[in-house]
Amino acid sequence: VSEPRWLNDDEQHTWRAFLNASQLLLDQLDRELQRDADMPHAYFTILVALSESPGGRLRMGELAEITWSSASRLSHAVTRLEQRGWVRRTEVATDKRGHVAEISDEGMRVLKAAAAEHVGGVRAHLFDLLTDEQVRQLREISEIVMGHLAEHHPVAVRRARATGPAAG
Amino acid sequence: VSEPRWLNDDEQHTWRAFLNASQLLLDQLDRELQRDADMPHAYFTILVALSESPGGRLRMGELAEITWSSASRLSHAVTRLEQRGWVRRTEVATDKRGHVAEISDEGMRVLKAAAAEHVGGVRAHLFDLLTDEQVRQLREISEIVMGHLAEHHPVAVRRARATGPAAG
Repeated sequence: VSEPRWLNDDEQHTWRAFLNASQLLLDQLDRELQRDADMPHAYFTILVALSESPGGRLRMGELAEITWSSASRLSHAVTRLEQRGWVRRTEVATDKRGHVAEISDEGMRVLKAAAAEHVGGVRAHLFDLLTDEQVRQLREISEIVMGHLAEHHPVAVRRARATGPAAG
Repeated sequence: VSEPRWLNDDEQHTWRAFLNASQLLLDQLDRELQRDADMPHAYFTILVALSESPGGRLRMGELAEITWSSASRLSHAVTRLEQRGWVRRTEVATDKRGHVAEISDEGMRVLKAAAAEHVGGVRAHLFDLLTDEQVRQLREISEIVMGHLAEHHPVAVRRARATGPAAG
């Protein structure tokens, strides 16, 4: 076993700044969504994904992929969203690939109101702080990291297996 | 009420890329720490904070500030760490500001082993993907966002109140 390549001081500072910035930003937007729209950020993400799909509907498996959720975590969240009347879950008789989630009219109404508040937070806590150049840099860096990690994610690994040669 | 300043397409792409990159990175490192060291990232952060403090000790309130945790979430985590024998919590008879958490020898051993694995993940999923220039850009952006959000955080707000003129 080789000696670990420890971070130098510069890397250590960069890593801690990034970790803190990401976590504080996610926490802040989560608190604001809770305060303004009575929902955690995870619910908001699910409603956005449904609202952008044709007919406001997605198979649970597709919804899990888009939101990078485990099946169990997603199912739990959709149950809560059903209880609030924002989402309906229906069985698809002709499709054994399972249940479909659909955003309700009330869900769309709630989402629009939440989004109108939320965008103010995203601007105040990110875009308004950065120059155009920094926004461009952040996009490049984020796309590199996202592209790399998407391949490692359990959902992506499952998808690759399901569509790979072994299953084809 | 004025019309919300919606994100344009470019900003939308940047925001989603950043959100996905941050969440996928935190999730990936959390899974790796669970797999390699049987602990979530939150426990790792607590052990690091204690290990870097004089005598490996911090008041619970200080530990909450350093890790940006609520008192209840931190207390829950420290209870779990006590059960594993990695942390001790003691009362300070002379100090009514409450309990002190201290990392144990076993905690230090476990932390060192976990860190040696963890640094490989931080390199593989972040630093190795970026140029030196991008690392510098990421640090600048992260420090701006972190500095801004630290002021909004409930822990910081509490701290400002406790040390402000009203309490002085």
